[in-house]
Formats: sequence, C-alpha cells, structure tokens
Amino acid sequence: MTHPLRLGIAGLGTVGAGVVKIVRQKSELLAARAGRPIEIVAVSARSRGKDRGVNLSDYAWEDDPVALAKRADVDVFVELMGGSDGPAKAATEAALALGKDVVTANKALLAHHGQALAQAAEAKGAVIRFEAAVAGGIPVIKTLLEGLAGNEMTRVLGVMNGTCNYILTRMQSAGLSYAEVFEEANQLGYLEADPNLDVGGIDAGHKLAILASIAFGTEINFDGVQLQGIGDITIEDITQAADMGYRIKLLGVARMTGRGLEQRMTPCLVPDSSPLGQLEGGTNMVVLEGDQVEQIVLRGPGAGEGPTASAVMGDVMDIARGIRPAIFGRPSRELAAATAAASAPAPYYLRFSLLDKPGALAKVTTALGNAGVSIDRMRQYGHADTSAPVLIVTHKSAHSELEAALSAMDALDVVVGKPVALRIEDV
Amino acid sequence: MTHPLRLGIAGLGTVGAGVVKIVRQKSELLAARAGRPIEIVAVSARSRGKDRGVNLSDYAWEDDPVALAKRADVDVFVELMGGSDGPAKAATEAALALGKDVVTANKALLAHHGQALAQAAEAKGAVIRFEAAVAGGIPVIKTLLEGLAGNEMTRVLGVMNGTCNYILTRMQSAGLSYAEVFEEANQLGYLEADPNLDVGGIDAGHKLAILASIAFGTEINFDGVQLQGIGDITIEDITQAADMGYRIKLLGVARMTGRGLEQRMTPCLVPDSSPLGQLEGGTNMVVLEGDQVEQIVLRGPGAGEGPTASAVMGDVMDIARGIRPAIFGRPSRELAAATAAASAPAPYYLRFSLLDKPGALAKVTTALGNAGVSIDRMRQYGHADTSAPVLIVTHKSAHSELEAALSAMDALDVVVGKPVALRIEDV
Repeated sequence: MTHPLRLGIAGLGTVGAGVVKIVRQKSELLAARAGRPIEIVAVSARSRGKDRGVNLSDYAWEDDPVALAKRADVDVFVELMGGSDGPAKAATEAALALGKDVVTANKALLAHHGQALAQAAEAKGAVIRFEAAVAGGIPVIKTLLEGLAGNEMTRVLGVMNGTCNYILTRMQSAGLSYAEVFEEANQLGYLEADPNLDVGGIDAGHKLAILASIAFGTEINFDGVQLQGIGDITIEDITQAADMGYRIKLLGVARMTGRGLEQRMTPCLVPDSSPLGQLEGGTNMVVLEGDQVEQIVLRGPGAGEGPTASAVMGDVMDIARGIRPAIFGRPSRELAAATAAASAPAPYYLRFSLLDKPGALAKVTTALGNAGVSIDRMRQYGHADTSAPVLIVTHKSAHSELEAALSAMDALDVVVGKPVALRIEDV
Repeated sequence: MTHPLRLGIAGLGTVGAGVVKIVRQKSELLAARAGRPIEIVAVSARSRGKDRGVNLSDYAWEDDPVALAKRADVDVFVELMGGSDGPAKAATEAALALGKDVVTANKALLAHHGQALAQAAEAKGAVIRFEAAVAGGIPVIKTLLEGLAGNEMTRVLGVMNGTCNYILTRMQSAGLSYAEVFEEANQLGYLEADPNLDVGGIDAGHKLAILASIAFGTEINFDGVQLQGIGDITIEDITQAADMGYRIKLLGVARMTGRGLEQRMTPCLVPDSSPLGQLEGGTNMVVLEGDQVEQIVLRGPGAGEGPTASAVMGDVMDIARGIRPAIFGRPSRELAAATAAASAPAPYYLRFSLLDKPGALAKVTTALGNAGVSIDRMRQYGHADTSAPVLIVTHKSAHSELEAALSAMDALDVVVGKPVALRIEDV
C-alpha cells in the first residue's frame, strides 16, 4: 500500500483546521508511520472566505459537503460539521453509499443514526471511525473496542463533558453559584450554542450511548439513557458533599444487568480520594471495567483543537494502515436489543431544609423508614433562620424506594422546599 | 475471514492458563467480535503433568516450544515463557521464519532482540504483537502506536513496575524499612525469581526502552537507559519527601532532545497531588505526552492473570481482525539510531546528615554554590545525636553540576555518610 490515502474534509472549524495543520506539517512522519502518504484533496465549509490560519489553496473547494463526499478522488470522507441531521447526515450517507470510509467527530449523528449508518457502511465494505466523538483526545473507543476485546465488560463510567466538570469544580474552588460559573463559562466560549447540550447532559449522554453499544454489544439506545443535568446543583450541595468526603460529578454509567442495560448520565457523588473525585477542570476521565482486566482508567483533554484533531488523525492513520474492525465491535445486525433497565440500588445523598421545631426530624426519619430507606449518616448544620439544613447519606436503596421516600417527605409540613437527592456511585 | 485463527501457546504459567481460560470460556463472544473463531490447537510447557486448573486435553502437546512454533496447524505463536534468550527466542525465531505471527508478553526478549525479530517478521510479512510486555492490562502499546499516531510524542513516563510501587507505598503507609517490606513482598510472591529485575529497575527499564522506540521512532536501546533501583531508598527519604509535598516513585522517563534520546528509570520525586503521586500499591500508570493531544494518563493493573491475559487476547483479537500495523510503528529498518543523551536539568532533592557544629551548614551551601547548584528550599530537622538530618530542594541543575556538588560534599568533614540525591520530575 504505497498509494496515498486521500481525504475530503467537511467542516473547517477549530477541529477541521487542526486536522489540516497536522496533515500539512507532519506529512513525512505520518507517511513513515502509515507506510503511505496522507493527502487532503478537497475541503468544504460554510464560508469560503474566512481566514482559518491554514493554507487551503492546494485543495479543491466544494460548497456542498455532499458533493465533497461523492468526489471520485476522495477515499475517506472526514465529517467535522456536527449536527445529528442535515448536511452531516446527508454527506455521510452519500460517502457510504459509494463505499468510501468515513471519519467523524459527530456524537449526535452516531447516537441517533449510528446503527443505520453502520449498516450502510457494512453493505459496501466501508468503515465509520469516530474516536473524536467520545472524550476528545483520549483513545477510549480504540481501547474499549480493540485493546479490551478479550474482556466481557462489566461497567463503563466516566466524566465525559469537560464543561460540566469545569463548572462543578470551579463552583467548589471559587465558592461561586451555578449561575455565576455558568456565565463565566459562557464568556469563555466553553458552552455549546445550545448550552443544554452541555449542562443538560445530552452531549455526554450521546457519548455514553456510543460507549455502551461497543462495551455490551447492544444497539445504540440514546433514548434509554436516564438524563439529568447539573442545573439544580447548588454550592451548598458541593460544599456539604465535600464535608462528607465526596465530590459531585456529572457521571455517566453504563452497566449490563440481568434486567437489561442500565445507562445513566446524572450528577453523582464519588469519593474525593478516587481518580474520578480528583478530576479537576475540563479534563475527561473514562473508567473501563472488564472481567479480566479489572479496571482501566483513562484521563485526558476532552476537547480543544489539538486533542480532538489527534483523535481524528488516529482514525485516519488506522484506515491508512488497513485497521478496520467492525464499526461497533461486531457487525451491526448482530447487536442485541438494548432494553433499558432501572438503576441498581445505591446509597443516596439527601439534602433538605427542616423546620426548626420539636419532632421535625423524627417525622422525616419515620417517613424514610416507612419507604424502606435506612440512614447511614446524618448531619444537621447550624442555622440562623427558622429552618436547618440537614444532610443524610442513606444505605443502599432501590430507586423506587428513594422515590417513595421523596414523595413522603414532600408531603411533610416540616420539610421546607424540595429535597435534593443524588446517587452515590461506587467507584 | 471466517476460517478460525489457530493458536499455539508456549508457556502455561499464570498468564498462559489465563489465556486458555478466556479462549475456552468466551469462544462465542470472541468469534462475534473477531468475525471468526479463535481456537487453541497446541500447547507447550516445561511440565506436562502439572494441574493448571484448565482442561488441556483438547490440544496437542509439544514438549519442545520450537516444535510447537513450527506446527503447520498453528497460525499464531503465543510466547508466554519469558527470558531474553534460550527457548523463548529460539521458538519465536522459528515461528517468524515460517511467516507465523507472534504474540508475546516477553519484555526482556524485545528489549534485547526486538529489532532483529521485527526484521525477521517483516521479511516474511508476519507481525509481532506485545501489548502484555508493558504495563500489564493497560493497552498502552496500542494507545501510543495507533491511537496517538497523529502526534509527535514529546515525553513518555510512568510507573511500570507494580512491585516497586507496592514496596515504596507500603513503606510509607506502614512506616516500615525497605528491608522489611522487601521481605513482605517476597513472602507474597510479588518478586521475580531474580528480585533485581524488579527492585533494580531492569524489568521496568525493558518496558521503557520498548515504549521509547515506538514513541520516537528510534531503535530499541536498553543499554541507553539510565538505571537506578529502589534499594537505597530509606523510610526517612519517604517521610521527609512527603513532608515537602512529594512522593518517591520508581519513574521511567523517555524524552527526545536535541542531544539525543533521554531514557531514565530511577527513583524520582513527584508532587503528591499529581496522578503519579497518588498512585498506590501495585497499580501501573503511563503518561503519554504529544504535541497535539497534550497529556493522556493511563492507569491499570500492571500484572496478574486476568489483566495480562487480557492484553495477550487484545493482540490475538487484533490479528484475528486483520489489524497489523508496523511492529514498532514504522518498518524496523527505518528506526533512527537512539543516541543516549544525558538528563536535562532538573531540581533535585538532597538528603544528608550534618555534623552539629558552628559553620557546618555554611560549608555545605558554599560547596553547592561553587558547583553551580542553588538552593530553593531547605529544612533541618530536630535531632538527638551529634548530627542533624538536612533536606535541600535545589533549583534546576544540570546532572554534571549535581555530580560535582555531591563530590564536593563528600570531601567535607561536616557531612556524615553519603548524601542521597533524587531527581524531582515535573509531572
């Protein structure tokens, strides 16, 4: 294989420009490693005139990404536009229909249409590679799909949205409210155009659904991900969880159970001494647990030009080297149905305000007991007004028991406002 | 590719038995992922009669691993015997001469003969895969060679010998001496038959030399690794380094510099808040730094039946799936010469005993200053006898300056015994 591998790149934002830079600046290194040259033949983006800090004059320009994807001189269609539908989907389908390989960073596209696209690729002997879609520069797809292929995976979990981790750790270090740090993150350009993709957990949920499919050999089931954003986390939750030895993380967890596939992307408490608990700022961390390997922890930058372009180039180099395992680890028609399972029992963190009058706490503990929720630890904090902040860490409780307990507490006249309940994940 | 991939396994210790178990117990899962069955056809080990907890009756037995490697019905020779020469080398050569692929966990073999073996493989279109040779269950070879193929690597470092990390962290947590914990580790079976392979840093040095070759496209140069074991580390070093905010680790570092390839496997101080500093017990951690990806941290079990067998099976699955990049990331004839470079300047930790008399400290600081070593921080500890323990953290110093300073201190009549000097690595 000494003929060049010819790329057509659609989307020239930060990541696209980063990929162009690597191909231009490292042509010799890449060719030595791949055994063949890597070349860009054509590019496409919304605005042709924009200065992207890279010289594009050597490449053909296509206004229409679908036309780019169909070019006879393109071997690999590199899709860096984003969006679960529209041009990204149309151009990807066009490339696959012609048997061209696709490299994409588009987690939304894969979470919603990954299986259909994989079938289209398999029908033509093409591959779709998507390392950049999950956890930025961390080669987690490759590790899970190839490196751990001898394992029955037992759990996949991690912090997969750097913006949320930045917000939560910044709230703690600076003692700021969610709204204040959200505004900071916005000013810094850390948030997606639709911030709910980040803080609502949707973006991270897409990533989890992709990982779960590979880990457990199941269809991608994004609708089966239990989603909860970080918008309700208060600085009190963070400091009081810290006081009990925990950190709050937007944590993705996927596990195969006897009842089906459990997928959650929710704020959770993790021990502050665990690798996940110690993860600060915008860094990502994915933990892969298998029956043979026990536990592998991967940590690295979850976004940014260089790291994301590194992941895209890893896929390009794989294709150049003839590395093309089944797209989701096995042929897509063999993926099992992903029946959504409720969360396994876990300890929970409860925070609520208790009216300062005799017998108030007894009413709460009775309500919890009646619902089947037992108390492991409890703290009541000093207070200046008529109600006291109370924290409870429960023993392991089923999610249904917890829900029953929360309803019962809601009905009590001594609990002020809505109790907060966060799962404590065993990591 | 629906014909089975047929393995011949030489070496049925813990890891070999683990591989047999995985192939037997997961045949359906492996076939679904690889697109073809994985089968064992023949095995070899020193003692045929020994009970290894696995049923071997389905497989042909060969007393001679070379005969096993040559069998016409073996596609992949799995070498799990160990040893840099002797039967492991002979059998590997025999397999490669017949164009058979090889999977091995043998770091000593690769560190000493990797290049010649790779050339033999390349001449026949075969591959050698060796994920299990470095950092046990962590897929670090795959991450470096494939996942980060779009990066110019800048530094590779890590804790790659679980036994040494166990000894050092156990000394700290239990307050025991090196000799006491060494004996414990010996009782627990953590040490190699020749313990110097572990505590002398040789085993970890083999691993570092392999990683450096892939990272920097250079010939494997184990002789160029600056080696220092952990045998001289005292409990005082550990507690006093901790007092200054550091942990002591047997740390491997490889960097390409303008002067050549720097490779060190020596006890170093790292900040106690860094991922490396927080690594406890027998776990391994490898940090990969590249110009695009910034920093990827991989953490996992460095040894044990399941984790090591997981790594072996990752390689087997790669071969079954047709994944066969160049053995050290590029054709072995293109690997550059690895000129050994001296260590770059760094701050150092110095510990010595100072005679308790007027002007003693001034003599030491003058000697340091004359050698070009300047002091960042210093502590003198309380003492009951005639000499006082003194700690110094220097500013960045060249290795030659440090050596000169140590010689000058040696010549002083106020310094009791030999000063200890440990590099502080920036992680």
